[in-house]
Amino acid sequence: MSVYEKLQALNIQLPAVAAPAAAYVMHAQMGNAVFISGHIAKKDGQVWVGQLGKNLETAQGKEAARLVAIDMLATLQDACGGDLSRVKRIVKLTSLVNSTPDFIEHHLVTNGASELIAEVFGECGKHARAAFGVAQIPLGACVEIEMIAELHA
Amino acid sequence: MSVYEKLQALNIQLPAVAAPAAAYVMHAQMGNAVFISGHIAKKDGQVWVGQLGKNLETAQGKEAARLVAIDMLATLQDACGGDLSRVKRIVKLTSLVNSTPDFIEHHLVTNGASELIAEVFGECGKHARAAFGVAQIPLGACVEIEMIAELHA
Amino acid sequence: MSVYEKLQALNIQLPAVAAPAAAYVMHAQMGNAVFISGHIAKKDGQVWVGQLGKNLETAQGKEAARLVAIDMLATLQDACGGDLSRVKRIVKLTSLVNSTPDFIEHHLVTNGASELIAEVFGECGKHARAAFGVAQIPLGACVEIEMIAELHA
Repeated sequence: MSVYEKLQALNIQLPAVAAPAAAYVMHAQMGNAVFISGHIAKKDGQVWVGQLGKNLETAQGKEAARLVAIDMLATLQDACGGDLSRVKRIVKLTSLVNSTPDFIEHHLVTNGASELIAEVFGECGKHARAAFGVAQIPLGACVEIEMIAELHA
Repeated sequence: MSVYEKLQALNIQLPAVAAPAAAYVMHAQMGNAVFISGHIAKKDGQVWVGQLGKNLETAQGKEAARLVAIDMLATLQDACGGDLSRVKRIVKLTSLVNSTPDFIEHHLVTNGASELIAEVFGECGKHARAAFGVAQIPLGACVEIEMIAELHA
Repeated sequence: MSVYEKLQALNIQLPAVAAPAAAYVMHAQMGNAVFISGHIAKKDGQVWVGQLGKNLETAQGKEAARLVAIDMLATLQDACGGDLSRVKRIVKLTSLVNSTPDFIEHHLVTNGASELIAEVFGECGKHARAAFGVAQIPLGACVEIEMIAELHA
């Protein structure tokens, strides 16, 4: 199955590319590497505000991370000139979880993104990763994730 | 206008390259990619200590981020063997803002760096970015930023 | 001295490669670049739980960072197909220190990793770096570090 067949099977429609919240761009390419800017969690078009360990459960954070991954795929598609089949590999995710000092399940939250990428890209979706808890995220979002992908030459 | 003409028009003199605070180097190259180490905010040669949301306003944080960018340009110039015209593109910034759990304007703080880079490099300065709040930064600095740049082959 | 002679001189035996705690892989390669996933601190096979500024001293954090570096070298060796002499350079470390808002010695903690890498790799071990304090780390670990290395073509 192609990436688009997998997205269809998962009933996922990629949204419009998110606009940058400030003086940067959503993706930048260097050689075959694409750097996807940090994407903050949104739900129904609004910033998903909250903090793990305070007012959000791990399952909600995981759903937020899954939605971030879908938004990142839309940006990656834009970086590919509209065709995700140009992606050779998802190389790296860095996941920032807005969390209290006693919350320790950032890895489970981040799986929301990693598992979606594995479903969509299969072997090419196997990525390195770092996940950790941060004091706060722009606009109060509960999760922010950035990505590095490799395109075919 | 060249990068140096733009720096002159902005009345910016690049400082001496910062010394590493520990057992690392300020930049490392891999292929055409230059990785610039995290630079902490300094003012008048001293670490700019403070926390957004506690004892610093967004405008002060933005000024700190701008000063960090100037220090990073000095380091990047060193990585280029003294000639910033070798820079093909500023690829990525990662900005860590020392902030309380209720401060949510990390993206506006970080614009202090992004806007300066846009002024100096124009199209080549359009970069991907992530910005978020951290619990603390070495020596108590209010902002720390790292950068990836691409050099001409 | 080769990397393995240096490891032997330091009386370091590389452990088995750590298993990922979630839906990712421990390393991913793009061109000659290897991205090593965030490794959390472990001691005697258990997660080293704690927070700098609360229940751990800087010297303990530095020892934790050194142990993380040893675990990362085992992962890097795996990425090299079992032969660390394929490493051309350690390019970048990003070090996340689980710390209270009043702890400011993240750079000294991180030296535990940087100094070991310098000892083992010499000139090829000179790396760019960022280190900062985070609100929390998966499973409560005191330190998490990720790495980028370049392999010989």
